[in-house]
Amino acid sequence: MFARDRKQEMAHLILTTFDWLPEFPRGYVRDIRIRWALEEAGLPYSVEGVPFKERDADHFKHQPFGQVPWLTDGDVTIFESGAAVLHIAEKSDVLLPSDAKGRSEVIKWLFAALNSVEAASLPWFIFQFTGNGEESDGREAINDFLSSRLSHMEDVLESKDWLTDRFSAADIVMVDVFRVIDRFDGLSNYPVCRNYMKRAEDRPAFKKALADQIGHFKQADLREAVMDSN
Amino acid sequence: MFARDRKQEMAHLILTTFDWLPEFPRGYVRDIRIRWALEEAGLPYSVEGVPFKERDADHFKHQPFGQVPWLTDGDVTIFESGAAVLHIAEKSDVLLPSDAKGRSEVIKWLFAALNSVEAASLPWFIFQFTGNGEESDGREAINDFLSSRLSHMEDVLESKDWLTDRFSAADIVMVDVFRVIDRFDGLSNYPVCRNYMKRAEDRPAFKKALADQIGHFKQADLREAVMDSN
Repeated sequence: MFARDRKQEMAHLILTTFDWLPEFPRGYVRDIRIRWALEEAGLPYSVEGVPFKERDADHFKHQPFGQVPWLTDGDVTIFESGAAVLHIAEKSDVLLPSDAKGRSEVIKWLFAALNSVEAASLPWFIFQFTGNGEESDGREAINDFLSSRLSHMEDVLESKDWLTDRFSAADIVMVDVFRVIDRFDGLSNYPVCRNYMKRAEDRPAFKKALADQIGHFKQADLREAVMDSN
Repeated sequence: MFARDRKQEMAHLILTTFDWLPEFPRGYVRDIRIRWALEEAGLPYSVEGVPFKERDADHFKHQPFGQVPWLTDGDVTIFESGAAVLHIAEKSDVLLPSDAKGRSEVIKWLFAALNSVEAASLPWFIFQFTGNGEESDGREAINDFLSSRLSHMEDVLESKDWLTDRFSAADIVMVDVFRVIDRFDGLSNYPVCRNYMKRAEDRPAFKKALADQIGHFKQADLREAVMDSN
């Protein structure tokens, strides 16, 4: 069951991200989830860029919300970083066990990272840039939403290295969700979550993915500088 | 590829939800996604209740955030409604095509329903109950977040009945996300989304799922009334 399609593994995987971005989001663009998964799985892939400044109809055909990334695998094109990571995981025992029980454990935590934790961290992130830090009922409700989720994650991760019995696709997404929270110091009261994130960031595949994302946008700066000097 | 495990289909599926809930959330508890998927797939299942008022360690073992629902399938136990719906969909061509391309289309839209649309509707929902309707930058940012997602969904659904070429697991989750938005009149500017939701709510499997959820909690009221009268 859940046999992997070996033919598909041979197909060329293409990750599409923006061709350029301002400094601020670099290192935190969600293409890192896909890069990281591909690096962990040891699958060859190439990276393509689409314009950040003008998003055409073809962009919306691949990503209906006008965002990045998306993953192309032959005639299959997948937006949503969670779906793309799951697609890659289906090709590799490193990211997703092939037995039904192990598989379901990883998949439920992959959904939890997105729908239980990131669903709370996204509005919290929005509030980092609104209201000039003023206190309000809304801000408090959003803070409470995230705190509640992180407190439960402290319990979950207390006695283990990874969400399931070994590193998996679920950890890639959960850790990347934690990274954005940590960037705005939101993990300072959650040492177990923070140590878990640090443990994952030590993995060679993560370091390569991060360096590659930053290099990709740096390259774009250089390209622009050359064009400006002509 | 993606062969379904026929043995598992015979295993007894158990949906766990609260034993009782106040009136307000009834009809909108996320167990409806699982009920609906099971009804569409025509799979037999039973429903069990856990205490709403006191959540013990065993509850957190099944659902680490102290919520409902979860689905049990033999020795597999799955929280996260998205993961549970995907688990059910793996057992039925009605909800998830078996070819790689069709499968990936459904899975990406399932993630989009949760991580692109519900991620925006959840904070918007929180704001229905906070700040007494006062205007604030935070409220505006959260409103904009949801409006942007719904505008794109109008385009996506403009010329089709369902998210993919036929009704699927992705529609179950997207429609249930829309239902909560519509309850607070958030779809009034998005007629395509609203018609799509209405079309799905007309399905016999949805009607059965909704009636069953409401009946489940009604039953609990009756039980309580009998106990109170002793």
